[in-house]
Amino acid sequence: MQQIVDFILELDKLKGVTRKNRPLGLDRYENSAEHSWQIALLAYSLVQYAETLIDIHRVIAMLLVHDIGEIDTGDTIVFAVEGWEERKAAELAAVTRIFGMLPEPRRAEFMALWLEFEQAETPEARFAHAVDRAIPALLNLANNGQSWRENGISHERVVQRIGPPIKAGCPALWIYLEARLAEEHRTGWFGIE
Amino acid sequence: MQQIVDFILELDKLKGVTRKNRPLGLDRYENSAEHSWQIALLAYSLVQYAETLIDIHRVIAMLLVHDIGEIDTGDTIVFAVEGWEERKAAELAAVTRIFGMLPEPRRAEFMALWLEFEQAETPEARFAHAVDRAIPALLNLANNGQSWRENGISHERVVQRIGPPIKAGCPALWIYLEARLAEEHRTGWFGIE
Repeated sequence: MQQIVDFILELDKLKGVTRKNRPLGLDRYENSAEHSWQIALLAYSLVQYAETLIDIHRVIAMLLVHDIGEIDTGDTIVFAVEGWEERKAAELAAVTRIFGMLPEPRRAEFMALWLEFEQAETPEARFAHAVDRAIPALLNLANNGQSWRENGISHERVVQRIGPPIKAGCPALWIYLEARLAEEHRTGWFGIE
Repeated sequence: MQQIVDFILELDKLKGVTRKNRPLGLDRYENSAEHSWQIALLAYSLVQYAETLIDIHRVIAMLLVHDIGEIDTGDTIVFAVEGWEERKAAELAAVTRIFGMLPEPRRAEFMALWLEFEQAETPEARFAHAVDRAIPALLNLANNGQSWRENGISHERVVQRIGPPIKAGCPALWIYLEARLAEEHRTGWFGIE
């Protein structure tokens, strides 16, 4: 029992890992813990739009653990172009440490979920990635492009970076987002281009 | 698709609903969104200690939606003695509004999960309640009794209020917590008694 308690208290640190989006109406950046909650519910809500029949419960479990490595590494914007491999190695070391706090079988189970997400090969992992890539876009479209404005991200970079994974895991979501992004691009990309 | 997007953006408001605990090492109160994430993982980690065989995926789904009504009502400390029924009626109205933003079948599914949690009759709902009641205690025991100190909550009130639901849903967790709380009581209950 103490191992599980120590693990859960370790997870508290993810509440202090900040991302690039601000929650709507709040004057702070969101953290990776509340982000993980929100995309689990986004996945659940979107399940009928997955590209194939999926096990939604495994998707949710993957999304709940996918950012835990950031406890040691911090969050990196998806548009970062350098250091991706080093970052992934550091995250693997982090989750090995953190999941290693748990007894079996949970330790192996959480590690398998984390690796499945990273490898992005199963329909469940592809769906999970689609949802993870979509949420900053959904928040930005509702928030005058906040994180893209603050980081100077163009329409072209957004479409190149998030289009393929969203299309692969949840085609209908990409059809929706592509149209919303194109409309925003036509009307001035939040005034920064 | 737009209905789902509107629902997810509405959920962003739960990131602004504050609770009584502070995340370890952070100078702010935790919010109900990150709390929901943490207890979903606590439930997952504790599954072998449930009082009977349970469907852990339904537990996780319940925990992800159980606080959504607070978007309209705010969080109330579990030790509040008055207004509980009015509060529950207000939360029901809130989730009826918020889940009502979704198309079927998700609307009915989320409402069923929320009601199952509130009624606390199934083994899954009892386990979910045990976890939800345990997390403030786990955080307080690691944080010098922070929320109990700030709200003047005695050892006796903690044991009376959280003991029965934790014992009912996850007996081994209560054995652990009862001993930790008794030890803290013996040594001075965080200096406030």
